[in-house]
Amino acid sequence: MENHWKMWNAECAALEPEREILALEITTQMADKWLLWTLSVLAEEGSPLRFSRIMERVEGVSQKSLTKTLRQLERDGLVTREMFPEVPPRVEYTITELGLGMLEHVRPLWLWTVQNLENFERARRKYDERRG
Amino acid sequence: MENHWKMWNAECAALEPEREILALEITTQMADKWLLWTLSVLAEEGSPLRFSRIMERVEGVSQKSLTKTLRQLERDGLVTREMFPEVPPRVEYTITELGLGMLEHVRPLWLWTVQNLENFERARRKYDERRG
Repeated sequence: MENHWKMWNAECAALEPEREILALEITTQMADKWLLWTLSVLAEEGSPLRFSRIMERVEGVSQKSLTKTLRQLERDGLVTREMFPEVPPRVEYTITELGLGMLEHVRPLWLWTVQNLENFERARRKYDERRG
Repeated sequence: MENHWKMWNAECAALEPEREILALEITTQMADKWLLWTLSVLAEEGSPLRFSRIMERVEGVSQKSLTKTLRQLERDGLVTREMFPEVPPRVEYTITELGLGMLEHVRPLWLWTVQNLENFERARRKYDERRG
């Protein structure tokens, strides 16, 4: 077996507890559907997008969920938010380089998982049957 | 911007709710440190490993956490468990192809996140300062 697993284990062990929590927070939220979808809608657009336009494209998201999601993305530096003092005020969101990088790394995992859902379903069914 | 984001968004939207929950469960648990570490110790070994050997290598894990983690991995088909009727009984764990595939897709995301921790920390600090 290749040596890179060993290096990876060393890297896991070396992370200070505080930074490890942050890394876990970042990766965990990438399993949030609205967050991932919002980010990829902004990646698809590639230029600033208004709140209302994002809401149209992330089908089924509520205004409250989208507000929360965009705030979270902005806080982590994955999108930027710009407000134009018009009446009514116009607010636009743009994906950052960090956001694009994150998406590039999350997407293969997510697609692989979806492609393997049947394997996971089968494994769980078999396990649960064995355990009665 | 490339078209693959559009395809991905379509794929997100098309997933039935039940399967989406499963996909989220699978990807979320990959942010669990013990789970990830245990899986990569088994990948590093590449052959069956006894419970006690795994526990030595996943530094700091408790017996209870490791038991729970291995059960979760076995249920999702990421490791197999074999019991040999000796006294005391010997139990060995082996990573599956599915487990190796999962790890191959999780690792780039995790390493990227760790490499970008400073960017995330800085973004959060700035955001929190702005919001007072």
